[in-house]
This record gives sequence, structure tokens and C-alpha cells, in this order.
Amino acid sequence: MKRYRIGVDLGGTNIAAGLIGDDHRILKKDSVKTRAPRPAEEIARDIGALCRRLCRDAGVEYDDVERIGVGSPGTISGGVVRMAENLGFENVPLADFVSRAAGKPVTLVNDGNAAAYGEMIAGCGRGSRSLVAVTLGTGVGGGIVVDGKIVEGFNGAGGEVGHIIVKAGGRRCACGCRGCLEAYCSATALIKATRRAMASHPESVMHRLAPTPDAVSGRTAFDGMRAGDPVAARLVDDFIAMLASGVVSLVQLFQPEVVCIGGGISHEGETLIEPLRRLVYEQVYPGVSFEKTKIVAATLGNDAGIIGAAG
Amino acid sequence: MKRYRIGVDLGGTNIAAGLIGDDHRILKKDSVKTRAPRPAEEIARDIGALCRRLCRDAGVEYDDVERIGVGSPGTISGGVVRMAENLGFENVPLADFVSRAAGKPVTLVNDGNAAAYGEMIAGCGRGSRSLVAVTLGTGVGGGIVVDGKIVEGFNGAGGEVGHIIVKAGGRRCACGCRGCLEAYCSATALIKATRRAMASHPESVMHRLAPTPDAVSGRTAFDGMRAGDPVAARLVDDFIAMLASGVVSLVQLFQPEVVCIGGGISHEGETLIEPLRRLVYEQVYPGVSFEKTKIVAATLGNDAGIIGAAG
Repeated sequence: MKRYRIGVDLGGTNIAAGLIGDDHRILKKDSVKTRAPRPAEEIARDIGALCRRLCRDAGVEYDDVERIGVGSPGTISGGVVRMAENLGFENVPLADFVSRAAGKPVTLVNDGNAAAYGEMIAGCGRGSRSLVAVTLGTGVGGGIVVDGKIVEGFNGAGGEVGHIIVKAGGRRCACGCRGCLEAYCSATALIKATRRAMASHPESVMHRLAPTPDAVSGRTAFDGMRAGDPVAARLVDDFIAMLASGVVSLVQLFQPEVVCIGGGISHEGETLIEPLRRLVYEQVYPGVSFEKTKIVAATLGNDAGIIGAAG
Repeated sequence: MKRYRIGVDLGGTNIAAGLIGDDHRILKKDSVKTRAPRPAEEIARDIGALCRRLCRDAGVEYDDVERIGVGSPGTISGGVVRMAENLGFENVPLADFVSRAAGKPVTLVNDGNAAAYGEMIAGCGRGSRSLVAVTLGTGVGGGIVVDGKIVEGFNGAGGEVGHIIVKAGGRRCACGCRGCLEAYCSATALIKATRRAMASHPESVMHRLAPTPDAVSGRTAFDGMRAGDPVAARLVDDFIAMLASGVVSLVQLFQPEVVCIGGGISHEGETLIEPLRRLVYEQVYPGVSFEKTKIVAATLGNDAGIIGAAG
């Protein structure tokens, strides 16, 4: 009986895969290096080998795997990676390549959308049918699910949560635009802002927490705030205020059951989420009596992409 | 044979209705005053009477009307108006009321969503399956259709295109927030900005176009620009730049086939749309080879809401 699925999270550095059993549980996980850029057929072969190895190691017949879902960075449409800069892919029929290498039907989705879908079916959005994920990592990623379906856009390039504009004419973003959410709310942006604030505030407690610029992380400002440093507290306030502006826009448009905040910075938990929720509710729901979007931290971490791709 | 539908656009001032035939054509239109606030049952009875009159005047048997679609302002969910401030409605089962008064099955949708749907099936988005409408009127309204389905949100409050935040910490909006698209791109906002610019530029040509503050309209800045006035040109540039920021966010999230700009200011046509399109494409699509969202002016005007509600 074909009762297993495999979810693959293809990243710029690693290819992670998981064998998925009932109720979206990961029974076995494994990974190999992506070693991009290299030909997509080679990467597809490695994915095929990884899938077979997963089953062998889990003591599961490969024949019992029904299908494989692959989450890939970039613009995905009709089984084709239209463009994925960090993999060096342009118009690569990756679903076909993996299907041939693995001998299974393959579904190809964008990795951010896969993670959002994973959180919806098995994580912080369990039981819901609509969820917007905002992932605060090196960049700001995300994914959108409405009525149980991923919002991909007609060209596969939708769901770019990090590149909504929260401050027209504001900070330059890596994408070239000004004022994108990513320019304020990525870990990279927070680290830069922290370094700038430390440089102009030699008295800040943060210098003890991170003695050199290289030691500054996305946690430094939060730790400084917890240590009572007003400079750090202001950094955190500004960060959360900009994140709230982005989440307000997402809620105004989608009114999803759940907004799920993921990525490294989401490990701050309610320190981040409680003031975020308050700011968003103040701006979106003054005096309304109907149900409000839940705003919560992601719970699946990196597994979200694997579970979502398989789902 | 039940081959007609009726679309009703319930507004704060007028109730407009249209008898819809094949291919979404309006065969006959009529309207009555809303006279809000008053009991929803009374409004429903007027809608019922209006529908019957439409058929009589068109020489169509009322029995041949299959169903009625009603577009209403406010938050709509499951046939109920959860909240519509300008009608004074809260938790009004309007679909039931109209169905009883009109003796037909009734579908209730938000008016902005109805207009977006109308433009998609019969207007500027004809032949497409996904469209985001941005309506530049007294406020900024809109509606969102993805894969042929309206994005209503789980609580019916989605699609609030006017209240995405384009400039965090910016201008105060009528909704209480700062930096909403509506605070920059409604006709109201443009008129205010025009008056301010005129007050500080007594040399501006716009004083000839609009000799008193009351004479300033959403056209004044555009007319001034056409007359070669640099102050007016800057107003128009700023207006279009902010609108572009909002449209960039919408495209990044939805990548719809069509973004449709409606409302009074959209009558500027390509004077508005051409620079808007250029700014959005520069920010969303640098160097991409795949299909881009079409950005166009709405074509149905007020009929969009009637056609969309019926559709």
C-alpha cells in the first residue's frame, strides 16, 4: 500500500528530505550538500538517491512511496523552475528531472510556499485553511495559503512577502527597491541596525554582549533589551513596528486564520509576538466584533518545508 | 428558462441594479435612494421591488430570473453583513432578507470584491482568472480575485487594498492608522495635497484652474501638469509613486494576471497608467523573462459592481 510520501527541501546549501507517514509525521530525515551551481540533472539524481536511501534507512519499501514533493527556491510554474538565482537555474523542468531520477510522480512548489503549507497542515496553523507565513531569516521569505491552496500567482512568482513595500522611499533592499519589508526585518537588516546603533552608543550594554562587530547577531538587540539597555530596546521596538506594518498589510488583504512568524528571530517567541500582535490588532481591528487573525510563532522550523512539500 | 440574473450594488447613497443577460451584458439598469440608516428589512424590500420593476421595464418575466447577487459595503461573511458603518449595519442577515423580499436565491458579496470580479469577467480583465482592483475614489477601495475566486478572508474582511501600509509612520489615514495607501492615493488625499501645494505656491497655474479651494478636484493637479506647471507635475509624480508602492506590494503577493485601476482618477487613463506601469515594472520585474502582470485602467465604471455581483 502506497502510504508514504517524501518531502524534499532543496536549498542553496543543502538538500534535506524527509519520509512522511500518517498525520504528516516525519519518520526519517536525511540530507546531502547541494553543491550549486551544477547541472540540474545531477541535482535531480542526488535527490533520487537521497529518497531511496531514506526508505532503506527507515526500513520502508521504496514501492510504498506514493509521490515526492520538492520545494525549491525561485519562481516555480508548471513543474518548471523559471528562475532561481542561488541555484543558477533558468527554465529548468525540475519536476520532470526528479521524477525520472526517482521513478515517482513529483510535485514542485516554491520553498517558502511549501513551508507555509507545512505550518498550516501540521504546525502552528493546524486545523486552519488559510495562513500567511513570514520568515525572518537572512532575507524575509514567506508563503501564502488561501482556502487550502497556495497563492502562487499566474506566473509562479507570487507570495513574495519580503518584498512588499512598507516604507516608500525608505531603506535600500537587496532587491534594488527601497522600503521593502526585507530591508527592515531580515536578520541581516537587524544586525546592520544593531551595529550602527552600537557605533553611536559606546555606553550600550550591547558592547558587552557582542564585543566585536562580527559577534553581533539577530539576538544582540533582544538580549540587550532584556538587560535593560534603552538603545537595544529602541532597536527592538523599531524592528517590531516595521514588522507590524508588513503584517498589517498582509492581514488587510488576506484576513487569514493565522499569520505565522518563522525564521531565526522567531525564536524570541512571545517577546517578539506579543507586541507584534498588539500593534497589528490596534491597526487592523479597532472596534470590530468578528474573529481576528491569530498571530503566532512558527513551530516546525526547517521541517515545515519538508512536510509542506510532501503535503 | 431561467436565463437572467440581477446584480445589485448597494451603496450608502443609491441602490443600483441591473438585469444581466448573456455574456454579462446589462440589459436594463435602474436605481433608488438607499436612505440609510434605516432598518435592513426595509432596504431589502426596496431591493425586491427594484428587481421586479427592472424586469417589468425590460419586458422580461420575473420568473426567468435565476438569482440575485448583492454587493454591499462592509465585512461580509456567510450571507451576513458583519459590519458596514455607512449603512449602520451590524450582523445583518441581508442575503436572507433580500431573498425573502425578492423570492429568489441571493448571493451577498462585498462591493469592492464584486467590482473586481465584474472587471475580471466582463471588463479590463476579461479572459483572465486573477485580478486585483484598486479603486481611487473618496477612499481607496478594491477587491482581489485569485484563480477565479474572490479572496474574502476567513472573516469576510479581506481585500482591504486601501489599508495596506505603504509608508510606515506616514500620513494619518481616516481609519486611524498611519501610512495607508488611502492616505496618499484617494481623491480626497490628492485634493488635500493639491490645496497645500497651491497655498505654498501662489505662482502655480493651478490657481487659474481652481480659483477657490472648493474648486480643487482630483483633476486639478493633472490639468496643471498638462499646462506645464512644475508644482502640479510634482504632485502627480508623488501621487503615482505612492500608488506604485502599493501596486508593487499587491503584485509581489498575488502576481495576478491583471491589476485594474478604477475610480474617478482612473479617467486620466494612460497619463496615470503609463508611468505607474513603468514604476511597478522597474521595482517588481528587473531582468525577469516570465510574464508580467498587466496594469490597466478599469473599463466598466460603476457597472462593474452590478455585473460582478450578478456573476
